[in-house]
Amino acid sequence: MSEAAFAPVYFDHNATTPLDPAVWKAMLPWLSERFGNPSSRHEYGRDARRAVDAAREKVAGAVGAQAAEIVFASSGSEANNLFIKGAVERMKPGLLAVSAIEHRCVIRPAEQLVRRGWLLEKFPVSADGRIDFEAYSEIVERKPASVSVMAANNETGVLQDIRPLAERSRSAGSLFHTDAAQWFGKLSLDFRDLNASGVNAMTLSAHKLGGPKGAAALVVDKRVGIEPLIAGGGHERGLRAGTENVAAIVGFGEACERVASALFGTAEKIRALRRPLERGLIELGAHIFGRDAERLPNTVCFSIPGIEGETLASKLDRAGYAVSSGSACSAENPEPSHVLLAMGVSPDRARGAVRVSLGASNTAGEVEGFLGALRDSLSNLMKLTAVAVR
Amino acid sequence: MSEAAFAPVYFDHNATTPLDPAVWKAMLPWLSERFGNPSSRHEYGRDARRAVDAAREKVAGAVGAQAAEIVFASSGSEANNLFIKGAVERMKPGLLAVSAIEHRCVIRPAEQLVRRGWLLEKFPVSADGRIDFEAYSEIVERKPASVSVMAANNETGVLQDIRPLAERSRSAGSLFHTDAAQWFGKLSLDFRDLNASGVNAMTLSAHKLGGPKGAAALVVDKRVGIEPLIAGGGHERGLRAGTENVAAIVGFGEACERVASALFGTAEKIRALRRPLERGLIELGAHIFGRDAERLPNTVCFSIPGIEGETLASKLDRAGYAVSSGSACSAENPEPSHVLLAMGVSPDRARGAVRVSLGASNTAGEVEGFLGALRDSLSNLMKLTAVAVR
Repeated sequence: MSEAAFAPVYFDHNATTPLDPAVWKAMLPWLSERFGNPSSRHEYGRDARRAVDAAREKVAGAVGAQAAEIVFASSGSEANNLFIKGAVERMKPGLLAVSAIEHRCVIRPAEQLVRRGWLLEKFPVSADGRIDFEAYSEIVERKPASVSVMAANNETGVLQDIRPLAERSRSAGSLFHTDAAQWFGKLSLDFRDLNASGVNAMTLSAHKLGGPKGAAALVVDKRVGIEPLIAGGGHERGLRAGTENVAAIVGFGEACERVASALFGTAEKIRALRRPLERGLIELGAHIFGRDAERLPNTVCFSIPGIEGETLASKLDRAGYAVSSGSACSAENPEPSHVLLAMGVSPDRARGAVRVSLGASNTAGEVEGFLGALRDSLSNLMKLTAVAVR
Repeated sequence: MSEAAFAPVYFDHNATTPLDPAVWKAMLPWLSERFGNPSSRHEYGRDARRAVDAAREKVAGAVGAQAAEIVFASSGSEANNLFIKGAVERMKPGLLAVSAIEHRCVIRPAEQLVRRGWLLEKFPVSADGRIDFEAYSEIVERKPASVSVMAANNETGVLQDIRPLAERSRSAGSLFHTDAAQWFGKLSLDFRDLNASGVNAMTLSAHKLGGPKGAAALVVDKRVGIEPLIAGGGHERGLRAGTENVAAIVGFGEACERVASALFGTAEKIRALRRPLERGLIELGAHIFGRDAERLPNTVCFSIPGIEGETLASKLDRAGYAVSSGSACSAENPEPSHVLLAMGVSPDRARGAVRVSLGASNTAGEVEGFLGALRDSLSNLMKLTAVAVR
């Protein structure tokens, strides 16, 4: 894509979002004359430190947390690894538990701990992608050292009811973490409220809500001891060493502030776009994953029987619509989605998965155009299939 | 510092550097319309992937490495942690060795491994800050699993002769890593050449050479097995999960390209500024740490007997000169520098340390002005001391 090229319609906001122009504007000075290292004590450094502090207040304010509970990181993956490995680093190996539909940046660090002697259990989900509370409780009764259940799934958009899960986990004495990277910016989020139910930590990511890549946070209850993943200088209360990415952190703060103020209207607007989209998809014979579950307002993950998701997404890309087959993070992985398999979807059907994730700038006309392009792509693919069968 | 404020002279380039305007320009499109996630397979994603690939080639090209040897990270601290912990993660605990003057983002992760049962030895340095080869050899003879010695010290600028150290380490069967974050951009660096002597991995950081904060790399020989610090998606050949910070990576690539082409002239220009600076400092009674050792051309770390470094740096800041007392990364730490203590400097004298680190944009006039401001600050502080004594 050159700078002058035709811009496809962007329907992949769960992978990443365009940078909000106001966020961009807020970042600019920190990429030019205000370049200090926040650890420096001279004026350049103090200037940068104040910017990081102000951004920390904004992020905290947007999620009902205290500034001192925000640990900045470079990505949601880093924040997840920081909790999963850091919360148990000083404990004797025992039981860990995460849901079967977590992002791989929760599952993989948990698997690394298995190699260090930990036992890992995965909470099963029902066909609609929701945690099976009974099975969850059975595992939690065995008192895992830590539990992680994502708030909203990146592939299907299915939401979990985090509070009862956290309460159950707290009563077993387990630490509870939720990856809220997909939830935050799309639905309201209050850490104080979640914390009162037993949520000890949660992950946020800037680039999922109009902020820049390179900034994220682990929001963590100060009473929870976390061992740094990146150890070194005393940055982030000793929990995350490394020169702060000031511009990205400032952008994250700005994005949080904007999202918090506009959230309700945006969610409603996007939900109103998804209704005709889902109607159209069903008319075209699509199966919508987690259709009857509460979902993020912007996400629909579907398959069309007999059509590979990869092939369909690629056809739609050529027709000018950027959608995802599975999650962007597993693009290098040809395996069917572990999330859909955990929901009991057959590997064949799971390979058909295509995800549309809408954003605030999408329009009804784009949705209509997309359904037309999908219809064309399908009739074209059906013809090819018919020819191939003959 | 407001955008319109008087800009102090910046003499703290080892803490961080201003962003090169050409780097900024290269980054801009990736902070606006070219916002894709490199893992996405649609055009937005492929566009971002090509940018990351091109930057990887540029970084590799600037340090004589192959593109496949570059693992992008968010900071030098992360790259150091990735090597220190990742290289031995799958080994049975044994001996580790790092120099006594490493940055804390090497020492601290090594200390984390001590809690997992590893034994840590630190290589001593002589009074001029150079590794004592005999003591080094004695430790290396005990066959540590991995060895880390920084190429150039951030505080004193003292250089190590890395090749004989790596050769010695290789003959003991140890993995050898060097933190080259301060060296790169100031002196020429060739990973192929170092690798031939036994260097298995080295750390680079973008914001030390006119690039942005938020991008760094571990350059690592593909034959070395490294366990990811941030595990998850298959990014960076499975060695570092997380959505790539595309803009910062593009900026890193651009900074590498510019530095590689201009290196020699810049180093000579900066060296020419440091000569009168050091002469002036000595005339004012300063002791220069590592004075007779080979040092980075831009760095001078000094103390004035009886004067606290903190106090002096603060006076100079008010006079319009941004210098560091100790390294920026230990600004939150009131302890005297572990680097200077390892050189046998007394705690009192170490507390006097002030670092000036020059950059390409500094001028002879600024150096002259600085020496004048230093003279004024000193006479002022001496008077205060005299009053206090009376």
